[in-house]
Amino acid sequence: MDLKNNLILRAAKGESIERYPVWLMRQAGRILPEYRAVRASLGGFKELVETPEFAAEVTIQPVDILGVDAAIIFSDILVVPEAMGLEYQLIEKKGPWFEKTIKTEEDLKYAEFDFDVEDRLSYVLEAIKITSKALDGRVPLIGFAGAPWTIFCYMIEGHGSKTFSEARKMIYTNPKLAHELLSRITKVTIKYLKAQIKAGAHMVQVFDSWAGVLGTGQYAEFSLKYLEQIASAITEVPVTLFAKGAYSSLGAIAKLDCNTVGLDWNMDVAEARALVGETRTLQGNLDPCALYSSHAEVELLTNNLLDSFKSKRHIVNLGHGVYPDVDPEKVKTFIKTVKNYEIKY
Amino acid sequence: MDLKNNLILRAAKGESIERYPVWLMRQAGRILPEYRAVRASLGGFKELVETPEFAAEVTIQPVDILGVDAAIIFSDILVVPEAMGLEYQLIEKKGPWFEKTIKTEEDLKYAEFDFDVEDRLSYVLEAIKITSKALDGRVPLIGFAGAPWTIFCYMIEGHGSKTFSEARKMIYTNPKLAHELLSRITKVTIKYLKAQIKAGAHMVQVFDSWAGVLGTGQYAEFSLKYLEQIASAITEVPVTLFAKGAYSSLGAIAKLDCNTVGLDWNMDVAEARALVGETRTLQGNLDPCALYSSHAEVELLTNNLLDSFKSKRHIVNLGHGVYPDVDPEKVKTFIKTVKNYEIKY
Repeated sequence: MDLKNNLILRAAKGESIERYPVWLMRQAGRILPEYRAVRASLGGFKELVETPEFAAEVTIQPVDILGVDAAIIFSDILVVPEAMGLEYQLIEKKGPWFEKTIKTEEDLKYAEFDFDVEDRLSYVLEAIKITSKALDGRVPLIGFAGAPWTIFCYMIEGHGSKTFSEARKMIYTNPKLAHELLSRITKVTIKYLKAQIKAGAHMVQVFDSWAGVLGTGQYAEFSLKYLEQIASAITEVPVTLFAKGAYSSLGAIAKLDCNTVGLDWNMDVAEARALVGETRTLQGNLDPCALYSSHAEVELLTNNLLDSFKSKRHIVNLGHGVYPDVDPEKVKTFIKTVKNYEIKY
Repeated sequence: MDLKNNLILRAAKGESIERYPVWLMRQAGRILPEYRAVRASLGGFKELVETPEFAAEVTIQPVDILGVDAAIIFSDILVVPEAMGLEYQLIEKKGPWFEKTIKTEEDLKYAEFDFDVEDRLSYVLEAIKITSKALDGRVPLIGFAGAPWTIFCYMIEGHGSKTFSEARKMIYTNPKLAHELLSRITKVTIKYLKAQIKAGAHMVQVFDSWAGVLGTGQYAEFSLKYLEQIASAITEVPVTLFAKGAYSSLGAIAKLDCNTVGLDWNMDVAEARALVGETRTLQGNLDPCALYSSHAEVELLTNNLLDSFKSKRHIVNLGHGVYPDVDPEKVKTFIKTVKNYEIKY
């Protein structure tokens, strides 16, 4: 299907663009009353993720309502460990909670790694197909998965944590098991991303949400190694790597076979560009809290960010998922400001 | 009182040392069965903090049992907002919880800033006096406080958070109120640290635990500015600044009038030294998870860290508070390894 707006794909590949493309992490869900209505009708977040027609509906909402340059499939990175056999619940104000976790070789029995991804995660793939058809080429559709390190963190720890010390403990006490598990997660993730692309995703993003708990050396050994396998395996569409909090590994991430490197809100664009070089697109990184400002201030802060770009190789986004209590009108101001901005390069 | 072991003070000031001094953040409490026994007899953490004789007892335990080169007073950074009038509870597995928070100018009425610190925080000062007497000069005693930014985070948010988006929101929506509150916290903090010194603290550490949620520019404006006031005001004893997750602000922190800069476990010592220069002592930064390894591995990892030092200006510590389930015997191996290490410089 021909895309009427392929701006984000061109920006990812470093091709010519007439303006910077813009979308928001977590744009599908959270802030829109239209999303909350659909979610309430189904019971909750997980039900929505697992019901393709509705997942597709909320995926398209921000394209219609906010005017973003890409849709991202409404789903969760934790569908992967769940498909492996580790079911999770989402507990109000607490986040994800896994009944079973992996602490020893013996615990690997709880998880299955050699299964038919297209069958077991068919609900995500079906949502992508429905979305793709309904979008009718208006904007590209982004698929995604968690980075192996981040999925590993949840599979070991069983829930969110500020330090993921249980996951990090295994690096010291049983590095062999850690690598075995990371390697198995990586294989499933590659299959899963390829299935998303086959179903209609035009680009994919890998989220390493817990990159920040590792030092540079450990990050290279326990995360980059596996991101490299994913980035090299995905040759069909542009790949974005977003490692939150991994400032000191940015240069190394940019050396992987990816198109775009995501920046969190703490990273300075000029410094990031110096570390990443000119051969990768940068994605980000307005502070999500900037959207709590007045409309005039949102416009000013957005223009300041855009002024800090010194090339075409940028995709505009926040530096973190949009926060749930942000006024959608402020998001519209952010998007409008990006769309009105004239690229100088 | 003459100190029999003043190694850590000499290391902080860049004077000659015969070996590297070593202590652990959170050494008082958490890991020692002897601590748990005292805590259980009193009911809980807060009761222990508020009962000087017992706070002194657990402060001294790691000196006796582990052989560290400094004691740090057993207390909590949240005693400061509590003294201001914002009481907190510690909820099991959830952390601190404040009933009242500051969201508007009007809410400032909940807090008092001009009070007699020596009176209202007398229980901490009394604990310092008892500890100081009981230590009898064996090792120096460290006093501490939270950085204004970190205390601000709790006073706005009312509880822990991964992003402290409520606190960061105020930076955008009401920077004037944010600065007003930060300024008031700073004044109280300076008085409090000076009172700790008067009571017997030989050095002080300021903990900016939530430094990592701000970008470099915001950190300069909303945290460094106030750390600078504290560092300049404390002239009596050496000052340590520990800003967790503020890797990109390390150079700026080192420019403040402090003696020692703390490093979290993610920071590379050589890179940190390049950013900080030779005029400050570095403190840290073994990964606390390294203490989950075997004794031989703990020794190896500790020696690797020590080998990365290229000068005398180091105080050895973990890069985060010691984790509660660490075997105290592993801590002893860590400390013994540091004590046996021969400085090459």
